[in-house]
Amino acid sequence: MSITVKALQKTGPDQPFKVANIERRDPRADDVVIDIKAAGICHSDIHTIRNEWGEASFPLTVGHEIAGVVEAVGENVTDWKVGDRVGVGCMVDSCGECEECRAGQEQNCLNGSVGTYNSTDVDGTVTQGGYAEKVVVNERFVCRIPDALDFDVAAPLLCAGITTYAPLNRWGAGEAKNGAPKKVAVLGLGGLGHMGVQIAVAMGADVTVLSRSMKKEQEALELGAQRMLATSDEDFFSDHKGEFDLILNTISADIPVDRYLRLLKARGVMAVVGLPPEKQDLSFGSVIGGAKVLAGSNIGGIPETQEMLDFCAEHGIAAKIETVGIGEVDVAYDRVVSGDVHFRAVIDTASFADAEVA
Amino acid sequence: MSITVKALQKTGPDQPFKVANIERRDPRADDVVIDIKAAGICHSDIHTIRNEWGEASFPLTVGHEIAGVVEAVGENVTDWKVGDRVGVGCMVDSCGECEECRAGQEQNCLNGSVGTYNSTDVDGTVTQGGYAEKVVVNERFVCRIPDALDFDVAAPLLCAGITTYAPLNRWGAGEAKNGAPKKVAVLGLGGLGHMGVQIAVAMGADVTVLSRSMKKEQEALELGAQRMLATSDEDFFSDHKGEFDLILNTISADIPVDRYLRLLKARGVMAVVGLPPEKQDLSFGSVIGGAKVLAGSNIGGIPETQEMLDFCAEHGIAAKIETVGIGEVDVAYDRVVSGDVHFRAVIDTASFADAEVA
Repeated sequence: MSITVKALQKTGPDQPFKVANIERRDPRADDVVIDIKAAGICHSDIHTIRNEWGEASFPLTVGHEIAGVVEAVGENVTDWKVGDRVGVGCMVDSCGECEECRAGQEQNCLNGSVGTYNSTDVDGTVTQGGYAEKVVVNERFVCRIPDALDFDVAAPLLCAGITTYAPLNRWGAGEAKNGAPKKVAVLGLGGLGHMGVQIAVAMGADVTVLSRSMKKEQEALELGAQRMLATSDEDFFSDHKGEFDLILNTISADIPVDRYLRLLKARGVMAVVGLPPEKQDLSFGSVIGGAKVLAGSNIGGIPETQEMLDFCAEHGIAAKIETVGIGEVDVAYDRVVSGDVHFRAVIDTASFADAEVA
Repeated sequence: MSITVKALQKTGPDQPFKVANIERRDPRADDVVIDIKAAGICHSDIHTIRNEWGEASFPLTVGHEIAGVVEAVGENVTDWKVGDRVGVGCMVDSCGECEECRAGQEQNCLNGSVGTYNSTDVDGTVTQGGYAEKVVVNERFVCRIPDALDFDVAAPLLCAGITTYAPLNRWGAGEAKNGAPKKVAVLGLGGLGHMGVQIAVAMGADVTVLSRSMKKEQEALELGAQRMLATSDEDFFSDHKGEFDLILNTISADIPVDRYLRLLKARGVMAVVGLPPEKQDLSFGSVIGGAKVLAGSNIGGIPETQEMLDFCAEHGIAAKIETVGIGEVDVAYDRVVSGDVHFRAVIDTASFADAEVA
């Protein structure tokens, strides 16, 4: 017997969101039922809905930045109990047995992890995301949201938080070098970048925000950055040659990769989490000289996601958001694309209560 | 008062080598005079001489794989004494004071390290390399050649050895993973590749040689590789998807970077030491999926070069060479370029004794 819940659904890329009833599976022995309190709007949701990443499976409910409260648990679940504050990110299942799963890197499951939406679930159905009243998830893909974090500002951490925390952590943004903080540049100040800045600052890095213009300088400083630099300045690339230990590239547009690599110190790292549509030009000489590193990163495993949530709570950081009701999501999408949202729109799922199914 | 020595000299890219007298500086207080016993022929020498890396300063003597015996030392030199077996690689000086030099990464000296040839020395002269009877070098750029290594097979270690050792070391080729050796692929089996294979095997890795054809399979196995694979096989890239922890790319030609990155496991590393002339196409998605790493490497610092020499001696490995006399170097160059030398040509500088200056 499945659970009927209200959800925001699209029937096609050009259709408006409508409130629909969707079915959640009756919880299995290892499942957790979550009453969703907030759902972040990630740019990936928009790419998916608009078929920019291939043909999506409509009708579809998206959303993989989910925060809520445990409402019920399957009979074998011991780690979670009713009332727990929890979150779900970009994955809802994986084999649990391959070397990647065993290493807590479920996002790289060799048998394929199951995405939170628009993904084929283990039972063959298409997963439906978090723009909904409730979700049913395997207990292994649930993280604890510390009490210090409100649901709405915690939701975006499940994707934007871990996406930036993982590379900053892996490449030692917080490790001092010669007794001084590492110099970390965050390229782009959107949903990802604003989390990257806060996390890198909390780790102890000396953080510079790089953006085309200085428009968001005040916000960059408020997030804890030491400075902001405009990449469109004529002398930007020559003035800042060899300056950074680590560059976190959060933008999804083409960039002059070789020029950015010259901004790194020897053995410096450019970590990329933004996915431009085209191939980029790279001279191997740009990484050979100075033994530099170009590294990708894709979200993070469940243990590291929990570590990130605890880290954010401990350091008093979270997403900077604006809350939107379920009737405002189409407008929010356009505003996200135009860069008008500073820095994350989060759906208040309480607004489902009064909504009528279309 | 300078020291006059016989050397192989080119007066232009198309001129044959001739034996000429060149002047080595009178040793300064911190200099070491080395009686050269063997000098490896590195592909870089050929690129330089043929103006393939820009206009070289002719007349020029190249060679940066130098092995010999200390013949005299400056008055402040305490680490070296007459008779010591020593080597010199790609650098002969650096500031010694910047953070890179202090970190033992002299090749990345922020004030510019001095190359062993065709480089402007601290006194403004153009450095002259190791195809010569003697060389005078700052004591900080001298490494000890363990007794277990003959001069001729040690010489190539000073460039080809450290170039492959450094990335294998940095990226943990010898670290077991889940209790098993790491799977390391060495792409290309030339002067660099044949050292990479031996070093990775000695570190404890499970080594696969990748080459266009299987022509050198027997040699690959003799060097200790577990297997060789032909990259020209129709199904090569699909059959070996996700197989390697580390790929060491030693070839200087264009490669389909994205396809090679797919051969890596999650969090795998492709280390590049070969410099193709053109820019390469790279999809950021190829590193983002599986959080992969594309890393450059440029020789290594002096402490690590010494570590590599000691490692090679301890593990009984060295370059596989053929010895050429000073009259055979032009022919050897053509043979190196055509891939006919397995795997390094080394000049026996004893042949200077009977040579007349042209």
